[in-house]
Amino acid sequence: MDAERTEIGTLGEFGLIAELTKGMKHNREETHLGVGDDAAVISALPGQRSLISTDLLCEGIHFDLTYVPLKHLGYKAVVVNLSDICAMNGTPTQIVVGLALSNRFSVEAVKELYDGMRLACERYKVDLVGGDTTSSQAGLVLSVTAMGQALPDDIVRRGGASDGDLLVVSGELGGAYMGLQILEREKLVFKEAPGAQPDLTGHEALLERQLKPEARTDVITELQRLELVPSAMIDISDGLASEALHIAAQSGCGVRIHEEKIPMAEQMYETAREFNLDPTLCALSGGEDYELLFTVPQDRYEDIRNHPMFSIIGHMTDDPKERTLITRNGMETELKAQGWDGLKSDA
Amino acid sequence: MDAERTEIGTLGEFGLIAELTKGMKHNREETHLGVGDDAAVISALPGQRSLISTDLLCEGIHFDLTYVPLKHLGYKAVVVNLSDICAMNGTPTQIVVGLALSNRFSVEAVKELYDGMRLACERYKVDLVGGDTTSSQAGLVLSVTAMGQALPDDIVRRGGASDGDLLVVSGELGGAYMGLQILEREKLVFKEAPGAQPDLTGHEALLERQLKPEARTDVITELQRLELVPSAMIDISDGLASEALHIAAQSGCGVRIHEEKIPMAEQMYETAREFNLDPTLCALSGGEDYELLFTVPQDRYEDIRNHPMFSIIGHMTDDPKERTLITRNGMETELKAQGWDGLKSDA
Repeated sequence: MDAERTEIGTLGEFGLIAELTKGMKHNREETHLGVGDDAAVISALPGQRSLISTDLLCEGIHFDLTYVPLKHLGYKAVVVNLSDICAMNGTPTQIVVGLALSNRFSVEAVKELYDGMRLACERYKVDLVGGDTTSSQAGLVLSVTAMGQALPDDIVRRGGASDGDLLVVSGELGGAYMGLQILEREKLVFKEAPGAQPDLTGHEALLERQLKPEARTDVITELQRLELVPSAMIDISDGLASEALHIAAQSGCGVRIHEEKIPMAEQMYETAREFNLDPTLCALSGGEDYELLFTVPQDRYEDIRNHPMFSIIGHMTDDPKERTLITRNGMETELKAQGWDGLKSDA
Repeated sequence: MDAERTEIGTLGEFGLIAELTKGMKHNREETHLGVGDDAAVISALPGQRSLISTDLLCEGIHFDLTYVPLKHLGYKAVVVNLSDICAMNGTPTQIVVGLALSNRFSVEAVKELYDGMRLACERYKVDLVGGDTTSSQAGLVLSVTAMGQALPDDIVRRGGASDGDLLVVSGELGGAYMGLQILEREKLVFKEAPGAQPDLTGHEALLERQLKPEARTDVITELQRLELVPSAMIDISDGLASEALHIAAQSGCGVRIHEEKIPMAEQMYETAREFNLDPTLCALSGGEDYELLFTVPQDRYEDIRNHPMFSIIGHMTDDPKERTLITRNGMETELKAQGWDGLKSDA
């Protein structure tokens, strides 16, 4: 992969950090001090509260470097954390990054990873303000902590939904999971015939959903424009079913979802068929779409119903034990959070 | 080690988190929302800025579970991050924790780790407000991100020292390194004779320095009482020499340290002799003492000189190339940051 290979040992930890953060600029005036001291110094805008969320990503568990380019990994690691800030109806502002590396990584490889993180920071006007770079005996470990801001009255938790609230989702679901299936298939092909070129044509959109997801900061901006504060919100990392059940459980409500209302891209639908997978199951349990799932009171129906960003897929009920999926043919079945593993053993 | 062993798989991620955070209370009114949503919600006290620092600890690199009890590891992982907040002259307020575990860890083992973190949170009145718990293919990985607060004019960076400033250190140095030597020796003994009981008597204080270090929040409080804002400050994680050189480099100054002024505990001194190590070298390069190293203008000499918390060990000069250690016999040698590896190959 690397035309050039510089060993990290030739730079040392401080040299590596200097190399990685060279020319790094801050986008936000609330960032007073970034990388290079014992701690970063930031401030909240007047009246705003701070939001904070952290994720730990381990090679072999959360990503497979045989098909995930390091630049994409860096981008995605940042985005999934920014998505958590969006899920509170906040604006992401800064991140700090912990990075553990074994010596199989070259300086060039780490730079690629950082390029991806830097790209995400630029795209979302977020500042990388600190970090820790260290050795690992076992592959790559990435820890990202994101900070954000929101006015106290705008902050949306998972547990605020009420009986009758509409359940709304942004974008389309299942694409990231199908992208992963394509990558896994090509990995198998490559294992059997190492010279083979991967056949990814026609699947670019799905691969991008998997490799380069986006945080829906645009949804947060649109909610502000609509002066609409959801009653509950979560981002979809583990799959629609799992997240809908989180909102229901934490709100003490039941939930009903209509299969025909679940937004799916045509390409996802067709590829699922090609893989002999049920597209609805991919959308319900696939995960990693990083769309926002939220509830709004019924009197906001008009703001949402024809909005191109949103789909109303169901509603909340007053029975905490209710978890219903109404299928296309009108049957009622239990809404289950299978997660990825469940999906795999079913497929 | 465990009388009882519950597999993590029997609880699942959400069950494990519920178990770990059961009965967790918040100490601070600025903590509005902790564990259990997409992000934590905190606020800064009026006029204060937020400080943030992160560390990533990997098994086999930063700790060795053959002799580090999990409870101590949890305590130390929190403390080293709080120490970074102290090094900015701030008060630590919250932490978030990322935890990756392989399946060799039982629920009981993870609880022990959490008990240590909880103890540190209670000791320092810090709230654990969020986290991420996940699988690892290779041992234990711990990521801790600490937040703190300080008034803008109280924040102390590494780069603010001037020519003539006194160089001051809190506490005594070298103890944590000697504690590690004792543990490494007993590990070797145990390897050769697995039934042997470790002989740690008489070394308790040194072992505690290594296994259960403290963050010097008391020093920050004392500096406030003295109305003394250091011109530069850093905490000693990599050894006195390395940290003094950081202050000098970032301040554009030189530095002179007097060997005879370096504070060392008698027990550390004697144990170093027993191990055929140079006590001064242990104090200069041993690291992990988590004492605070800072500079103050000469006109604050009277506040510091007989203060039981502090030792004046040298001063800053105007020549950025100067890095001098004045030995007990009056010779001048170059102050070198050897780090642990350097120390080991010399020893």
